[in-house]
Amino acid sequence: MGETLADLGEWELIRRLGAFAPPGQFADDAALVNHGGGEAGRLVLNTDVLVEGVHFSDATTGPADVGWRAAAANLSDLAAMGCTEVAGITVGLVAPGGTAWSWVEGVYAGLHQALERYGGEILGGDCSGGAQRLLAVTALGRIGTAGGTIRRADGRPGDVIVCTGPHGLSRLGLALLQGEFRLPTGEASEPEASALAARAIAAHRRPQPRFDAVGALIASRPAGLPWRVGGCDSSDGLAAAVAAIAAASGCAARLERRALPIAPAMAAMPEAERWCLGGGEDFELVLALEPGWAAALAAAQPEALRIGELVAGDPGELGWADGSPWRADEEALASYRHFSGAGAVPAA
Amino acid sequence: MGETLADLGEWELIRRLGAFAPPGQFADDAALVNHGGGEAGRLVLNTDVLVEGVHFSDATTGPADVGWRAAAANLSDLAAMGCTEVAGITVGLVAPGGTAWSWVEGVYAGLHQALERYGGEILGGDCSGGAQRLLAVTALGRIGTAGGTIRRADGRPGDVIVCTGPHGLSRLGLALLQGEFRLPTGEASEPEASALAARAIAAHRRPQPRFDAVGALIASRPAGLPWRVGGCDSSDGLAAAVAAIAAASGCAARLERRALPIAPAMAAMPEAERWCLGGGEDFELVLALEPGWAAALAAAQPEALRIGELVAGDPGELGWADGSPWRADEEALASYRHFSGAGAVPAA
Repeated sequence: MGETLADLGEWELIRRLGAFAPPGQFADDAALVNHGGGEAGRLVLNTDVLVEGVHFSDATTGPADVGWRAAAANLSDLAAMGCTEVAGITVGLVAPGGTAWSWVEGVYAGLHQALERYGGEILGGDCSGGAQRLLAVTALGRIGTAGGTIRRADGRPGDVIVCTGPHGLSRLGLALLQGEFRLPTGEASEPEASALAARAIAAHRRPQPRFDAVGALIASRPAGLPWRVGGCDSSDGLAAAVAAIAAASGCAARLERRALPIAPAMAAMPEAERWCLGGGEDFELVLALEPGWAAALAAAQPEALRIGELVAGDPGELGWADGSPWRADEEALASYRHFSGAGAVPAA
Repeated sequence: MGETLADLGEWELIRRLGAFAPPGQFADDAALVNHGGGEAGRLVLNTDVLVEGVHFSDATTGPADVGWRAAAANLSDLAAMGCTEVAGITVGLVAPGGTAWSWVEGVYAGLHQALERYGGEILGGDCSGGAQRLLAVTALGRIGTAGGTIRRADGRPGDVIVCTGPHGLSRLGLALLQGEFRLPTGEASEPEASALAARAIAAHRRPQPRFDAVGALIASRPAGLPWRVGGCDSSDGLAAAVAAIAAASGCAARLERRALPIAPAMAAMPEAERWCLGGGEDFELVLALEPGWAAALAAAQPEALRIGELVAGDPGELGWADGSPWRADEEALASYRHFSGAGAVPAA
């Protein structure tokens, strides 16, 4: 039957589908609506699909968390484009006829909670029967006049790479929920372990789109510096985000191993570096900024961390700032495939 | 396990989900984006999901037709809200990993063809593996300054009900494709039968959103008459569309049996009236207009037909203008349920 989607993988599929869209239209986390100029030219539209067994399961995620995550993941892509306002979402719901109304009600309650927090309304949607529960959520946002667009391709050699918070917590939360991992439970570490577990599970179930960081980015721009921000969110993993920015910006990236944004409470865990770089779904912003702007942002947002820089080099090539090689197993952290199997879990 | 979605049916499900949205937000074919006022207040967003085995099948619809229908059905909802411009669509694609790339390529070619015809771009989207092929398409459109919004609730007693073209052809096309029906093949009728078959199959596979009729509606507004247009499209069937407008507008509707918009070539078929009223997926506009405007529209668009009127009465009640009762089997034509079974076919 010729090539299948599994043969292609998600990235090659998206690359080929890009041929049906204007050049570069699929290059970012979400779509700029280039239509009519003026205000409408600052609209951003984003669609995510969440499929049972791929993106969520009853074992790890209750219905309200499914709804929150569906909205929050989508809104994170708006934030990653520089949006400061959420107009609303539409929701395509597919479910077998035997699905409990209480499950659907819980999902919508979670969607609604996220919009109460971040703005916007449930604008509309569609429902259908189908073999498998899934949500297709589309969010519409706006880039305010005080800020500008964040695009993957807008980085330059010499930019400092900043991320807006720690990474790996969501992956730890998933591991705990799936029972594949236990935190140490010796008496001395008990309170710290349960605090970390609660934080990691919350990171997995209730991710926070970083509109606050977009606000801080706008507020910290040095006077006179033109708007130019490379960036995306880290939903597919931190290393993948840095590689995507570097590739789109036509340069290489160097990360500082000692500055990896590992949550301090996870620092002693052997998995910490791997999950920080490739765990995925932390939904922080990863930004490439002129050094003065990066310093001003870090001063304004204590969680914003300098993790490396863009340098002249092969587009998308990752390396460590100390010159040590980027190993093949580290390379794998920068990819994330939805079509290669039924697993919900990123490669790491 | 309590109530299931099959227990509720699609309309009750949508009614309950409306509690999570602003009052009246789910009342129309698509969502007005009430955000920020001005130009952005005239944006319309619409999401449709199309599921294999429910909305399409390989037996009746090739991949390019699946794509065209997915876009056209969605754009029809924009036209039904009064949009005159299409900004673009996003596409959520779910498919098993074993799906042929050639099928996906064909679907996108069909989507692209529809946008080439009606305007707009493929703006973005998302892809995921899943058990079943489906598309979730979201379209963003704009209501131009020369026109206005078409809403179901904007009809009034005394309005003339107009539809923009014949009904039943799409249902005939489906019946022919599924082999459940054959047109007469006697020698004399052969050329007419094959022309009708081709037209019916095209109506099913390549529906046409009626942006041209929106343009005619705008152009035919009598001087000085304020913009007020009740309406929706007839995707769920003509009787369902009339009932929906009447119910939202707080009045009853009377249809003229002798003015039913049956395609002339179908007039002799016993199924003609049933498929005209309840076949669905004809994607014409059904409008409730002040009588002078209705007459001007019919003069401007020969296909636009007066089919009845809105009258004071029980909200949503349908009847025949000659006073004959609306029978229970006719009642059933006004409903359309996606959750009640696996069937692709509307009740009629």
